[in-house]
Amino acid sequence: MLAPESTRAAVLHGPDDLRVEDRPLRPLGPGDVLVAVDAVGVCGSDMHYFATGRNGQNVLRQPTVLGHEASGTVVATGSGVRLDTGTRVAVEPAVGCGDCDTCRSGRYNLCPDGTCFGSPPTDGTFAEYIVATRRAVHPLPDTLPLETGALIEPLAVAVWAVRRAGVAFGDRVLITGAGPIGILVAQVARAAGATEVIVTDVHDARLDRARALGATDVLNTADGAPQLTGIDRLLECSGHPGALWQGLRTLRPAGRAIVVGQAAPEVDGLPLAHLQRWEIELSTAFRYAHAFPTAIALAADGRVDLGGVLTGRFALDEAADALRAPVKDPTHLKVVVRPGDRSSRSDRSV
Amino acid sequence: MLAPESTRAAVLHGPDDLRVEDRPLRPLGPGDVLVAVDAVGVCGSDMHYFATGRNGQNVLRQPTVLGHEASGTVVATGSGVRLDTGTRVAVEPAVGCGDCDTCRSGRYNLCPDGTCFGSPPTDGTFAEYIVATRRAVHPLPDTLPLETGALIEPLAVAVWAVRRAGVAFGDRVLITGAGPIGILVAQVARAAGATEVIVTDVHDARLDRARALGATDVLNTADGAPQLTGIDRLLECSGHPGALWQGLRTLRPAGRAIVVGQAAPEVDGLPLAHLQRWEIELSTAFRYAHAFPTAIALAADGRVDLGGVLTGRFALDEAADALRAPVKDPTHLKVVVRPGDRSSRSDRSV
Amino acid sequence: MLAPESTRAAVLHGPDDLRVEDRPLRPLGPGDVLVAVDAVGVCGSDMHYFATGRNGQNVLRQPTVLGHEASGTVVATGSGVRLDTGTRVAVEPAVGCGDCDTCRSGRYNLCPDGTCFGSPPTDGTFAEYIVATRRAVHPLPDTLPLETGALIEPLAVAVWAVRRAGVAFGDRVLITGAGPIGILVAQVARAAGATEVIVTDVHDARLDRARALGATDVLNTADGAPQLTGIDRLLECSGHPGALWQGLRTLRPAGRAIVVGQAAPEVDGLPLAHLQRWEIELSTAFRYAHAFPTAIALAADGRVDLGGVLTGRFALDEAADALRAPVKDPTHLKVVVRPGDRSSRSDRSV
Amino acid sequence: MLAPESTRAAVLHGPDDLRVEDRPLRPLGPGDVLVAVDAVGVCGSDMHYFATGRNGQNVLRQPTVLGHEASGTVVATGSGVRLDTGTRVAVEPAVGCGDCDTCRSGRYNLCPDGTCFGSPPTDGTFAEYIVATRRAVHPLPDTLPLETGALIEPLAVAVWAVRRAGVAFGDRVLITGAGPIGILVAQVARAAGATEVIVTDVHDARLDRARALGATDVLNTADGAPQLTGIDRLLECSGHPGALWQGLRTLRPAGRAIVVGQAAPEVDGLPLAHLQRWEIELSTAFRYAHAFPTAIALAADGRVDLGGVLTGRFALDEAADALRAPVKDPTHLKVVVRPGDRSSRSDRSV
Repeated sequence: MLAPESTRAAVLHGPDDLRVEDRPLRPLGPGDVLVAVDAVGVCGSDMHYFATGRNGQNVLRQPTVLGHEASGTVVATGSGVRLDTGTRVAVEPAVGCGDCDTCRSGRYNLCPDGTCFGSPPTDGTFAEYIVATRRAVHPLPDTLPLETGALIEPLAVAVWAVRRAGVAFGDRVLITGAGPIGILVAQVARAAGATEVIVTDVHDARLDRARALGATDVLNTADGAPQLTGIDRLLECSGHPGALWQGLRTLRPAGRAIVVGQAAPEVDGLPLAHLQRWEIELSTAFRYAHAFPTAIALAADGRVDLGGVLTGRFALDEAADALRAPVKDPTHLKVVVRPGDRSSRSDRSV
Repeated sequence: MLAPESTRAAVLHGPDDLRVEDRPLRPLGPGDVLVAVDAVGVCGSDMHYFATGRNGQNVLRQPTVLGHEASGTVVATGSGVRLDTGTRVAVEPAVGCGDCDTCRSGRYNLCPDGTCFGSPPTDGTFAEYIVATRRAVHPLPDTLPLETGALIEPLAVAVWAVRRAGVAFGDRVLITGAGPIGILVAQVARAAGATEVIVTDVHDARLDRARALGATDVLNTADGAPQLTGIDRLLECSGHPGALWQGLRTLRPAGRAIVVGQAAPEVDGLPLAHLQRWEIELSTAFRYAHAFPTAIALAADGRVDLGGVLTGRFALDEAADALRAPVKDPTHLKVVVRPGDRSSRSDRSV
Repeated sequence: MLAPESTRAAVLHGPDDLRVEDRPLRPLGPGDVLVAVDAVGVCGSDMHYFATGRNGQNVLRQPTVLGHEASGTVVATGSGVRLDTGTRVAVEPAVGCGDCDTCRSGRYNLCPDGTCFGSPPTDGTFAEYIVATRRAVHPLPDTLPLETGALIEPLAVAVWAVRRAGVAFGDRVLITGAGPIGILVAQVARAAGATEVIVTDVHDARLDRARALGATDVLNTADGAPQLTGIDRLLECSGHPGALWQGLRTLRPAGRAIVVGQAAPEVDGLPLAHLQRWEIELSTAFRYAHAFPTAIALAADGRVDLGGVLTGRFALDEAADALRAPVKDPTHLKVVVRPGDRSSRSDRSV
Repeated sequence: MLAPESTRAAVLHGPDDLRVEDRPLRPLGPGDVLVAVDAVGVCGSDMHYFATGRNGQNVLRQPTVLGHEASGTVVATGSGVRLDTGTRVAVEPAVGCGDCDTCRSGRYNLCPDGTCFGSPPTDGTFAEYIVATRRAVHPLPDTLPLETGALIEPLAVAVWAVRRAGVAFGDRVLITGAGPIGILVAQVARAAGATEVIVTDVHDARLDRARALGATDVLNTADGAPQLTGIDRLLECSGHPGALWQGLRTLRPAGRAIVVGQAAPEVDGLPLAHLQRWEIELSTAFRYAHAFPTAIALAADGRVDLGGVLTGRFALDEAADALRAPVKDPTHLKVVVRPGDRSSRSDRSV
């Protein structure tokens, strides 16, 4: 197949202004692959850009294709690429420079010069075609549907978070926040051998889902802090500092907490004396490094149920609806846009 | 209950000379508990002592009660012990001095001054009653039968071995040797999230059992080395140096191997240049430290199937038969002696 | 020597009310040693108790002997202790229960049930004699003067902090705060092979001292944050959250910060998004575990200059003056009380 | 400067057949630098190739320039390289592919597809000019003479070995073998804060040198194994299995050994039961990863004395003499070939 010079894509021009239009595609260079996109998950960051034109420190300054949780099929390859066309892949959206000390030490997710699909001004994956480097595409086993392949990216977030937390088999793990990431983190913690996986949230409906999808116990914290002690690892997935402060107090001496949910620039109320008395470790997870193969293995192995997390699908033309869906209906976990399914129409009952 | 001054026990007087007789019991001191023994697993080391009067460096020099894999019920407690009589427990047989640098650093299994039930001259657990320190008994949840509680000890061996190997979720793990320890290691590796758990042996019957009990794949190596590459972790459970040398060659760069099976004093043929080129890590597991709670949690959680490993039971009077059973019938995995079941008779069809 | 039933000691009765008086001594039990105290360093926590009757969460509720940084000579031993009288020792003041999971895992400094000399209501070491457990006394080599032996305790704080920070040889290390702990941390970081050891403070006199005692560079931050990047490890020794927040921004991706200086219960302004983007590790150091032997080895080896940190000495009768000295004269680093030198009078020009 | 198309170089045609002749130079591609070589250390592997035409598994099959321990000055740069001509550099000779899992995880020294200067068939650095990738050249500070800059490579070997051993400050370290690598390892271990650094060898002259250059103690093991216990870390630098087996027995429980000296394919006599009883860790160091910046920092800092290790210099025309020198005179530690000094003649009294 000749690489097309453009693709249909959902381009964000400003807050609430998403247009499906033709978009130039960069030429297929050495080491590149052309992917016909099948499905793309909608992430909270996409929703922030769509609603406000920014996400954290990053601001939309020129029209940009959104989306970064993609699966698809390789339809052409640049020179030097040993990968068959027809290979079904998940796309790792963030790429480091490969040359700095951080990349060379193995932490390419922290590269100061990296780029990421759908992080303005870099075009994203709400598109029929994308060009990616070979290193960014990870073959999927035949047993994994392409549609759920789009959820390998958020699963990689969970894999990396659990790895960063150092969850060991036999551990007692607390997860604050029962959104899609919290639920995937719960499943991965369970796959890593945690014998207790307790999920907290303030909505019972979300907690019910967490219990159905891997939590061994759930707690509604609307009325107060979780009354727990001796927790080995905390994974904060709600984005609320209060949940973090409460969670820190459940940890055993020398316990470890990882902030996964998107953090505010500055937060007040850090219980520093408590951390000091018990030598609590506090750190974070940012994207992922070397996590896609593990995510794929866990999904293929049936250790993680990706299908259960998928709650809606939309055609590319309906991308704006997809971006609004989780706001309109908070019971949504993960919705996907399906550039690869031209017949698809929004379908709530996946 | 008043602590008895003696107990019936299976005492080894010399090779093949095991006598069930009365044996004095040490008085219940401060911090001690008296345990009515329910079940005791038979270990390879018990079989060595029984057959030859020695095991590794340790030699039987005076009559000694054998056995160290015990479960039972607390029937009396010494001063300062906060534990209800009636508590069902698994017994951790090896105790460190608690005061040396090694103990204080957390590696009490390596204490130079420790003792272990059933390691001559210290009396063991093939007895109706034993006295243990509080620290050595671990309460069992109600859901775990006492009989399988005797298998918590070999499960702790597996837990510690997998922890020493640093098995991470998503890993590919090779286990050489499909005996009871190999099979428990396979189950624990799987519980720790390994996505491939490959077990090798030279007997198909053992491999079939390994596959039924947790291996994702099995290989008969009677005809040659396993043709594998890219293995993350190797756990050598066969005791054969050849299996270790072959296994080391399957590891990825910077892979890690742990020797679990009992090692000979000196072995020839270490492929040192290979280890050097790939910076392979080689180490060992000796007993366990801090592993009983995790072993109990995994068994209670259903992550590990202990019942499937239990293949025979014998009365205390039949202890010698129990020690001969796995030799007579190599399909045995783990047999138990049941001092707690005075009605029990040998029963192959568990 | 018969163990005395009482000792002269400096007892705190309330804020600014320190009385040197007779104080009962607990009897010498099994495993105990009686130490004739030679010198005791004055710590910030002693000064807090003296000034306000409290330190952090802990409140003086009954008269208590202050002091916990002690050296001395063993003059009698309880049963079971293998240690010659006449042995010169440094005293490790905090003792864990030895039996809980935290102690048994090797982190006895985090024991929930531990005690510490001079932490009310436990009597401290501003006394002519103290009774300590064998485990708490560490023999000093002949080359170390007893007087500087009293500084092994704050050196152990620094050893543990540097170990917790994971300082590796070749590292660039930032230390915020040039008080006695900051300067000892700088020396230990240098001994651990850090090739850059940068110390910040707001007083030039303290920075000059830091430079003389081991810093490779110093920065006065009175006028603003340190303009540094690529720091591998941060050790916060000032107790000011602002210094911590500034220091965190100097760290390289995946850098690590350890809070050593006493922390407030809650602090505002944690730059959480910054931590998240770069996966910064934030943790703390609380006292020390297994650090005394290393502290003694570094001091004996000449790697750390303890004498240079000692800036004043006082007789036991002058303990109150010793507690006021560092406040009156901020150029003081560490002053000692000398119960062991009945002829000593305050001497500023050590 | 225009890049030359050829260079004078010392080419090995077969055992004992080294010819200084013109040799084509590969063109300067994007990302490349042209280095005018100043000095090149002679390594044991160079001597093996020269004497026998092979080294370990690698065999000379076509004429190849030897040498891989080089310093020099950048005289031209390919496109995309931000480095001033005139920059003085040490050359890291082994380069990974940069793209495989091993490289991307940070262990590029273990890349299966890497190349190394002077490892046949790749031409080496006994040459007036070499072309290297930008990533392979590390700027030297002004204070480091170019001649000793050639010793940064063996120093990087020592840095990596000490890092692999996990030497911590306060450790007791045993180093078997007082050759150039053993002595550099001793210096780095000392720089990393080891308080005891004991070096063994069978030649007193070498031990005297080791003591002068950083060992805190030395032991002649000609008459038997070192009578030591409680060693934290062993670094085997002699290449003799017997030294390794003896060294392993000096380690404390959970001690760690790293084999640095070149290993034979198979060795007999591994004391496996001893390793098992004490959970000794055995691993190796192969070349280095991320070690050049640390090596340069330690040398610049004066922590390591490179000059003391340099015992002879030879002109490029005398390269064969340089390769014979350490054999003729075993008191040599490190000799260098000086392509950059056309006036130089062999000079023993450096």
